[in-house]
Amino acid sequence: MPVETNVALLGYGTVGAAVDHLLTASADDIERATGHRLRVVKALVRDVARDRSTPPRAGVLTDDFAEIVDDPSITVVAELMGGLDPAGRYVLDLLGRGKHVVTANKQLVARRGPELFAAASAAGVQLRFEASVCAAIPVIKVLREALVVTNVHRVLGIVNGTTNFVLTEMEGGKTYDEALAEAQALGYAEADPTDDVSGADAAAKMAILATVAFNTRVPIDDVGHTGITEIDPLDVAAARELEMVVRLVGAARLVDGGYDVRVEPAFVDRHHPLATVEGAFNAVMLQGDAIREVTLAGPGAGGTETASAVIADITSVIGTMGTGFLQNDAAWRELPRLPPGDARSPFYFRLFVEDRPGALARVAEGLARHEISIARLVQHQDGSGATLHVVTHETPAGALADALADLESLDEVRRASRPIPVVSDRGVTELGWA
Amino acid sequence: MPVETNVALLGYGTVGAAVDHLLTASADDIERATGHRLRVVKALVRDVARDRSTPPRAGVLTDDFAEIVDDPSITVVAELMGGLDPAGRYVLDLLGRGKHVVTANKQLVARRGPELFAAASAAGVQLRFEASVCAAIPVIKVLREALVVTNVHRVLGIVNGTTNFVLTEMEGGKTYDEALAEAQALGYAEADPTDDVSGADAAAKMAILATVAFNTRVPIDDVGHTGITEIDPLDVAAARELEMVVRLVGAARLVDGGYDVRVEPAFVDRHHPLATVEGAFNAVMLQGDAIREVTLAGPGAGGTETASAVIADITSVIGTMGTGFLQNDAAWRELPRLPPGDARSPFYFRLFVEDRPGALARVAEGLARHEISIARLVQHQDGSGATLHVVTHETPAGALADALADLESLDEVRRASRPIPVVSDRGVTELGWA
Repeated sequence: MPVETNVALLGYGTVGAAVDHLLTASADDIERATGHRLRVVKALVRDVARDRSTPPRAGVLTDDFAEIVDDPSITVVAELMGGLDPAGRYVLDLLGRGKHVVTANKQLVARRGPELFAAASAAGVQLRFEASVCAAIPVIKVLREALVVTNVHRVLGIVNGTTNFVLTEMEGGKTYDEALAEAQALGYAEADPTDDVSGADAAAKMAILATVAFNTRVPIDDVGHTGITEIDPLDVAAARELEMVVRLVGAARLVDGGYDVRVEPAFVDRHHPLATVEGAFNAVMLQGDAIREVTLAGPGAGGTETASAVIADITSVIGTMGTGFLQNDAAWRELPRLPPGDARSPFYFRLFVEDRPGALARVAEGLARHEISIARLVQHQDGSGATLHVVTHETPAGALADALADLESLDEVRRASRPIPVVSDRGVTELGWA
Repeated sequence: MPVETNVALLGYGTVGAAVDHLLTASADDIERATGHRLRVVKALVRDVARDRSTPPRAGVLTDDFAEIVDDPSITVVAELMGGLDPAGRYVLDLLGRGKHVVTANKQLVARRGPELFAAASAAGVQLRFEASVCAAIPVIKVLREALVVTNVHRVLGIVNGTTNFVLTEMEGGKTYDEALAEAQALGYAEADPTDDVSGADAAAKMAILATVAFNTRVPIDDVGHTGITEIDPLDVAAARELEMVVRLVGAARLVDGGYDVRVEPAFVDRHHPLATVEGAFNAVMLQGDAIREVTLAGPGAGGTETASAVIADITSVIGTMGTGFLQNDAAWRELPRLPPGDARSPFYFRLFVEDRPGALARVAEGLARHEISIARLVQHQDGSGATLHVVTHETPAGALADALADLESLDEVRRASRPIPVVSDRGVTELGWA
C-alpha cells in the first residue's frame, strides 16, 4: 500500500497548474519510484474566485496561508508565486514548521539563499530549488548529488535563453534591434527586456550556481555583469573571422580559496560545447577534479519544463526524507571574492593603429611589458590605418586593462576596443576562463 | 555525531583503488551531505599478496568473499571486478543478503540487468549502476531521478569514446588505419579494438540506457549494431559537403509501445549538439514529453571519472536508504521490439547513375513509388557517369531498402550505397531518428 502524501502549492499560475496536472498524470510513475501517492491538497492564490482556464479540484484553492502552514498533513510545499515578499516570509515559516520546501524562485534563492539554506538545515528539512535555474536541466541535482566528491572549481554557462536567441539571430545577419523584435514576437523576450539583455537575469542564476558549486555565500552584487546591448557589430564580424561565436557567458571560478563570478559577452570557439547552444536553449559546463568536465544542455525555460523540475525535486524530497541527506547548509562556507582584475582569461581586442613602420613592434612591446603574450593576430588595412585583431593567451583582466591604457597613449594607436574574454577549445582544460 | 557506515569493494584495480582513495579524501564532504562517515573495510581480490602501487590500509584486502557477504556491518558493496562470472553470482548473493550494491560492470548490467533489478526489488535494497555507462556523465541518475515524470521516448547517444576519437581524426584527414593506430598509441583503443569498432560496446550501453529510459527489458541481442569499419571514405567526404559529420550514434526509441534500439554510423548536422562531441568524449540526448530534450556530455571513460560515478552512487544509496526510493524493478515492463524495418529516420545515400537524359526522373519516380521524399539532392559528374547524393525526409528503413533494391534494377543505375541515417537539427524534434 502506498503512503498517501500531501503536497501544497504557493501560486497557481502557469507553472502551478502544470505541476498539479503533471503530478496527477504521473501519480503511478511517482508511486512506483517512491512508494508514495502524491496529491495536491491546497494551492494558495490571491483570488480564489478568479476564472482559470485549468482550475484544480474543488476545495484546493485557498487565499489563506494558514490553511497550508498549519496543516500537519502537508509534507512538501512548492513555492511557485515568485517575488521576494511574501514568498520569502512564507518559505521561512514553512521550513520552521518542519515542512520541506521546493522553490522555482530564482530571485529569492539568489538573494536570500544562504539564509534559507541555514533555516532548512536548522529545522532538519530540505529546501530544493532545481527549477530556479535553467528549468528542466538538472544542474543543481547533478552538482549536489552526482558530483559530491569532485570539487567543482569552474562553472561556465549560457543561462539566459533570450540573449542567446538574439545572439544566434545576429550571427545569421540580423541587427540587434531586429533580433530583439523577433524574440519579443516569439515570446522569448518581455516587452521590457532589460532584465535579460542587461545580464541581470543570468547574474542571478550564476550566483545560485556558484553558491551550490563552491558551497559559499555569493552575494548577487558580487556578480559583475555586462549585457549584450554593448556588443559592437564589429565584434560579431571579428568572431566569425576567428571561427568563434559571440555568446553571453556566465563564468564562476574558485581560485586559491576565493571566487570570481561574472556574466559578459564572450567569444566561444566553434568547437567548444557552448558554441552549439543555439536559440533559446541553455547549457552549463561543470569542471571538477575527478570528472574533468560535464556539460548539461536543454531548454532553460517553459511552464512544463519548469514544472518537471519542481516535481523532480518533490520526488527527490520524498525519496530522501528522514535520511539526513542534503540537510546540511548548502552555503556553509564564507569564501572571499577575488579582486576582479585578478581573474584570468584569454581575451580578444581590436586596436586601430596608424599604418606606419614600427607600429606593430611598439604594440607588441607594450603588451610584453605587461607580460601579455599573443596567441593570434590578424591585421586588416582600412584606408589610412590598420586594424589589429588580437587574441591573447591567458592573462589577468587587470593587466590587460593597464596594457590597453598604455597602448592608447602611443602616437601609433588611435583606439583600443573593449576586451572580450575568449572561451576556446584548449581554454577549457588548459587555459581556464573566469 | 556521524553514523559510521562500512563499504566493501569487489576488485581493487584502477577503479577500485581510485574509489578507496576518493572516498577517504572526500570523507568530510560525504559526511556533510549524508550524515554518514564512510569507510572501505574490505576489498576482494584474487591475490592478496600481489605488489600494488597504491595499496589499501592493512587488513582491507581479502580473497574470501564470505568475509564481505557474511559481515553484517557492511551496508554497501561496490562491484568493480568486471566480467559476468563470478561478478553476477556475487551481486545476486549480496542483494539477497540485504546489501545495497553499486556496480560499474557494463556487461553484467546489459546482460543480466532485469534479473538483478528484480532481485534488488525483492530484497528491498538498491542496485545502482551509474558507472556502467559513460563514466562520470550522470545519465542514469538524471533518467531515474530528474526525469521521473517526463516519459522519455528517445535516447540518442555517442557512447563510445574510441570510435568517436577515430571518426574525429578521420574528419581531420586521417585514414581509418592511421586514426586507429593513433587511438591505440594514446591508450584510447585496445590492441584488439573489435569490441569498440564493431559497435558492440556501444550496443551494450544503449541496451542499459533504453532499459532505464523505457523501463523495459531490452535483450542485448535486440540491439542491432554496425561498426565504423564499414565507413567508406566517400561517406566522410559527402558528410563534409553536406555540412555534417560522421558519428557512431546509438539511438533508442519508444514508438507505439514498442522499442527500437540500434547503433550505427550516422550523419550528424553540424548544428546538432551531438556534432560537437569530439575526441574520446561521450554525450547522451534524452527527449521526453515535459522537457523537450536534455543533453549530457563529458568524458565517457577514465579511472577517476568512473570512481566518481561509483561514489556518487554510494552516496545516493546512503541518502535514500530506508525510504523505499528506487526500490522498484527498473525494468518492470516487457515491451516488444519494433520490426527493424519500421524504424523511421531521414537517410543519406549515394546513387551511381549513367549520365543520360531521364535518369534523374526515373530515380525520383522510383523513390516516389515507395513514398520516399527527397530533402536534399546534390549531383556530381564523374567521367562517364554521375553521382547523386540524396538526403531523404523521414522514411521507414524498410521502405528505403526496398526502394534502393528497385532502383538498382534500373538500367540507368549502376549502384546504390548503403543508406546512412541522418541526425539533423530539425530532426531532433520534428523528424525523429531511430
